[in-house]
Amino acid sequence: MSLSALEAEYFASPLSLDELSTPCLLLDEERMEANARRMAAHLGHMPLRPHLKTCRCWEVAQRIMQGTSCTVATMGEAEAVANLGAQDILLAVGIRPSLFARSRALMAQGIDFKVILDSMAMARALCADAAAHEVVYSVLLEIDTDGHRAGLAPDGDELCAIAGLLVKAGQRVRGVLTHAGAAYNCATPEEIVAMADKEGADAVAAAARLRQMGIEVDIVSAGSTPTALLGTPNPGLSEVRAGVYIYMDLVQAGLGVCKREDIALSVLTSVIGGFPTGKDLPARVCTDSGWAALSSDRGLERLFSAQGYGLACDMELHPLQGLVVRDLNQEHGMLCLDDTASAATRDFVLGLTPASRLRILPNHACATAMMHKCVYLVRHNRAVARLPLFGGW
Amino acid sequence: MSLSALEAEYFASPLSLDELSTPCLLLDEERMEANARRMAAHLGHMPLRPHLKTCRCWEVAQRIMQGTSCTVATMGEAEAVANLGAQDILLAVGIRPSLFARSRALMAQGIDFKVILDSMAMARALCADAAAHEVVYSVLLEIDTDGHRAGLAPDGDELCAIAGLLVKAGQRVRGVLTHAGAAYNCATPEEIVAMADKEGADAVAAAARLRQMGIEVDIVSAGSTPTALLGTPNPGLSEVRAGVYIYMDLVQAGLGVCKREDIALSVLTSVIGGFPTGKDLPARVCTDSGWAALSSDRGLERLFSAQGYGLACDMELHPLQGLVVRDLNQEHGMLCLDDTASAATRDFVLGLTPASRLRILPNHACATAMMHKCVYLVRHNRAVARLPLFGGW
Repeated sequence: MSLSALEAEYFASPLSLDELSTPCLLLDEERMEANARRMAAHLGHMPLRPHLKTCRCWEVAQRIMQGTSCTVATMGEAEAVANLGAQDILLAVGIRPSLFARSRALMAQGIDFKVILDSMAMARALCADAAAHEVVYSVLLEIDTDGHRAGLAPDGDELCAIAGLLVKAGQRVRGVLTHAGAAYNCATPEEIVAMADKEGADAVAAAARLRQMGIEVDIVSAGSTPTALLGTPNPGLSEVRAGVYIYMDLVQAGLGVCKREDIALSVLTSVIGGFPTGKDLPARVCTDSGWAALSSDRGLERLFSAQGYGLACDMELHPLQGLVVRDLNQEHGMLCLDDTASAATRDFVLGLTPASRLRILPNHACATAMMHKCVYLVRHNRAVARLPLFGGW
Repeated sequence: MSLSALEAEYFASPLSLDELSTPCLLLDEERMEANARRMAAHLGHMPLRPHLKTCRCWEVAQRIMQGTSCTVATMGEAEAVANLGAQDILLAVGIRPSLFARSRALMAQGIDFKVILDSMAMARALCADAAAHEVVYSVLLEIDTDGHRAGLAPDGDELCAIAGLLVKAGQRVRGVLTHAGAAYNCATPEEIVAMADKEGADAVAAAARLRQMGIEVDIVSAGSTPTALLGTPNPGLSEVRAGVYIYMDLVQAGLGVCKREDIALSVLTSVIGGFPTGKDLPARVCTDSGWAALSSDRGLERLFSAQGYGLACDMELHPLQGLVVRDLNQEHGMLCLDDTASAATRDFVLGLTPASRLRILPNHACATAMMHKCVYLVRHNRAVARLPLFGGW
């Protein structure tokens, strides 16, 4: 994709949301800016290295990056933002041999590119590649603070053994990284605060052990949207990472990290069936937003039981209480009224016509955004720009 | 996207699967061809109008289309295949006003483009657009045979009332369409056979009612992969539709529609963490295939309880019994050994290195394919071509 194809296209005149082809992704600028301000105010002097895997959008990235530093989840994202101007890029998913050549190419471009790993096996593979190609990788050791996914024990022998191997092979150990993804399994904000404390403390402790080995640690990186916003950053961290915070979603609202009114992302959808034929409410309302537009992400269902595939709202983003996104097929959304349906919701449904549109707030903003190639930037309920999304591997 | 960008790129020399960047989508040609032959043999003289929403791939489409006829789920797919050479296109998701202009453009190109609808409200909107632009739409009335999603009762008054309105307005009622999507909720193959019988009988009955009105019905269309393959097509149908059958997936295997060995689609993934450090099995194996590569589709979990996010296999597609794709994050897959792990699986896991790769069979082929921009065609376990995927709205 060419660079210009990844830049925002601002319209000469704003478009009514009724003019957009559906389904499509909408980004409310005012809510997004408020989310950005909230994170900045909360972190104070603690630097933020935003994770761009949520937005995958250069226009959004430019509004939240401090300088040229960012986090990405794929090499495709890294290459895209490097071409767009990011200089200080952290790939926060474990490096593997198939990405060594492309990593070297980024470094040869002058990018301060950092990779992570959490095993002696991968460290050896990286050292072998570095020796064969006479390069020095910048490596962060991934630390496990929650038993959730990946990482080395902050107090285990392996951490120092791997660091020692890398240093001996002439590689640059820049520090540590951790992500308390288990924050998404917390039932209360208090649990998230405790997890944030542990996330920060473990990362700082691991970094201290590297420093005791004589390693010059310049990066002590931790974070997730829940822990970043509900916790207080450990002053021993050098940076905090977060991505979803800029959009927010129903998962974050369910965790108590934000309010529903903070959710900046929505899917614009048209009603294609289930029009009332008289005074009776239809059994279901059918829309053109299936999982191809919303994703199949069921959000916090595991934690809080069934919740549907998003929150149906009217065109001004007022939730339609009791109109549940019950089921999705590829290009169909099936919405049903449940017992909690308000009078306003019933009136809304009774008034549906072939021209009717809805907006669906996403369970998981990363997953919903991933289904789209562009997002429309919405200001005062009109689309002012089309923002292309990058991505891929 | 240019036309050439949507055509297959065959490699000068086949690539080893170890040379491909991961995660990526693989299509086993031999299995795909066998699936195509099975459907053709089963249907006999009954025409098949393949649904291209699963493959979204012109190379695959050309191998299964009979003449130039196909089914699509979005206007973006319709436009893509029209440009590639399809002439007889059925959009099998309800038409809505925002697609009228693009529908007219396809018809103006000479495409025999057919739309579906299931309400008086949408029929009126279509007639108004047709009158304003002096065009004649080809309309199929959607019939509800399973109470699942959409459609008119085959024996209700509304069917004839809508047909009458369309005819009176000079529109062309070409016939009826139904899709027994509830086949996916069947617990046994016998239930699917019964649903296939009802799907065909209801479509034929609805068509007979239109013929009684003097309408020249040339399309009586029904189908889904389960009902098409397990049922016997009603001779009153003019065509059968199916899409997943060409790839198959764990949902189809769970329903008894295919065997696991028939599944032609898989995701190639690299191991990025959880390498054994001695004789102990790791708590988890981490791969680079999260939901961004596999989708969050949980398959038949509602019917058959927890089943994970796909089936882990070795590079020759032998299932690794007991190595469960337990959880997915955006770009991480977390695989765990359960009590059913075979000795072969344990040995496989104990032998994992940074060069190790796996193949994951998908729960739902449509959903997994949707996450990718291309698929590699695999012949004798080597990639012989890169096939771009079309799509979008």
